Amino acid sequence: MRDVTAAEVSAVLEAIAFNDDGLVPAISQQFDTGEVLMMAWMNRDSVAETLTNGKVCYWSRSRQKLWRKGESSGQEQVLKDFRWDCDSDTVLILVDQKGVACHTGRRNCFFNALRDGKPAVIADVEVDPEDLYGR
Amino acid sequence: MRDVTAAEVSAVLEAIAFNDDGLVPAISQQFDTGEVLMMAWMNRDSVAETLTNGKVCYWSRSRQKLWRKGESSGQEQVLKDFRWDCDSDTVLILVDQKGVACHTGRRNCFFNALRDGKPAVIADVEVDPEDLYGR
Repeated sequence: MRDVTAAEVSAVLEAIAFNDDGLVPAISQQFDTGEVLMMAWMNRDSVAETLTNGKVCYWSRSRQKLWRKGESSGQEQVLKDFRWDCDSDTVLILVDQKGVACHTGRRNCFFNALRDGKPAVIADVEVDPEDLYGR
Repeated sequence: MRDVTAAEVSAVLEAIAFNDDGLVPAISQQFDTGEVLMMAWMNRDSVAETLTNGKVCYWSRSRQKLWRKGESSGQEQVLKDFRWDCDSDTVLILVDQKGVACHTGRRNCFFNALRDGKPAVIADVEVDPEDLYGR
C-alpha cells in the first residue's frame, strides 16, 4: 500500500455513501488467502485514519469511539487494498491480519454454522482471549 | 447443502441478532475461490427461504420486498454454507454464483479502489447489463 495523500483521502470520503448515522459497513478479508475475517463499521474519521496510517481503524458503535484494531490485543490489520462496491455503501478491505481477528481467539469471526441440524462452532480457538486482553 | 428442516431454520433465526429494523447484513462469498461477491441485507423471511430453498434470497431495503437473487437476471446464488459471526449480527454465506453477482455485469460488486491516487474501476464488465435485465 503506497502512501496516501490528503487529496486521495478526500476523494474516497467523497465517493463513499455513508448511512444516516455516518457509518459504512467494512468487510475485512485476508489478502492472500481470501479468508473473510470480520465485519465492522467505519465512519469518516476511521476511513481517513485507515488510509493514512495503513492500519485498519473501525468505529465502535458500542463504545462510540475510534477502534484501532489490535490496539489492546496486538492483533492488528495491515491495509493492503481499500475497495468499495457498486452502490458505494459497503467497503471491502484487504488486509494482512496479525494473529487472530476474533476477540474469541479464533482466526475469523464467522465460526457458527448449521451442522447435523444444529448450530455448531466450526473453528478452534487459536489464542487464549486472556492472553489477548488480560485477566 | 443438505435439506434443512423447520426446526433447524428456527434454531438459526433464534441464534441471529437482527437489528432494530429486523435485518442482518449478509456477505456472500464464492465457496471455492474465496471471492467476496457482494453484501446485502436479510430479514427473517429471507433467511428462512434461503435455508429452505438452498438459493439465496435477500431483503431489498429500497423495494421493501424479498429479493430472490437472480430472479430476473438468472444470476442466482446456490447456497453452500450459512455461517454467522461471534456477535451473531453478521451473516457469511458461501455460495456458488451463477454468472455475475453485480448488476453492472461485473463478477463482484467491489470494483472501486484507489489507483494512482484516484478512485478507479478495477474490474471489467463481463456481461452486458442489458442482457441481464433487458432494455
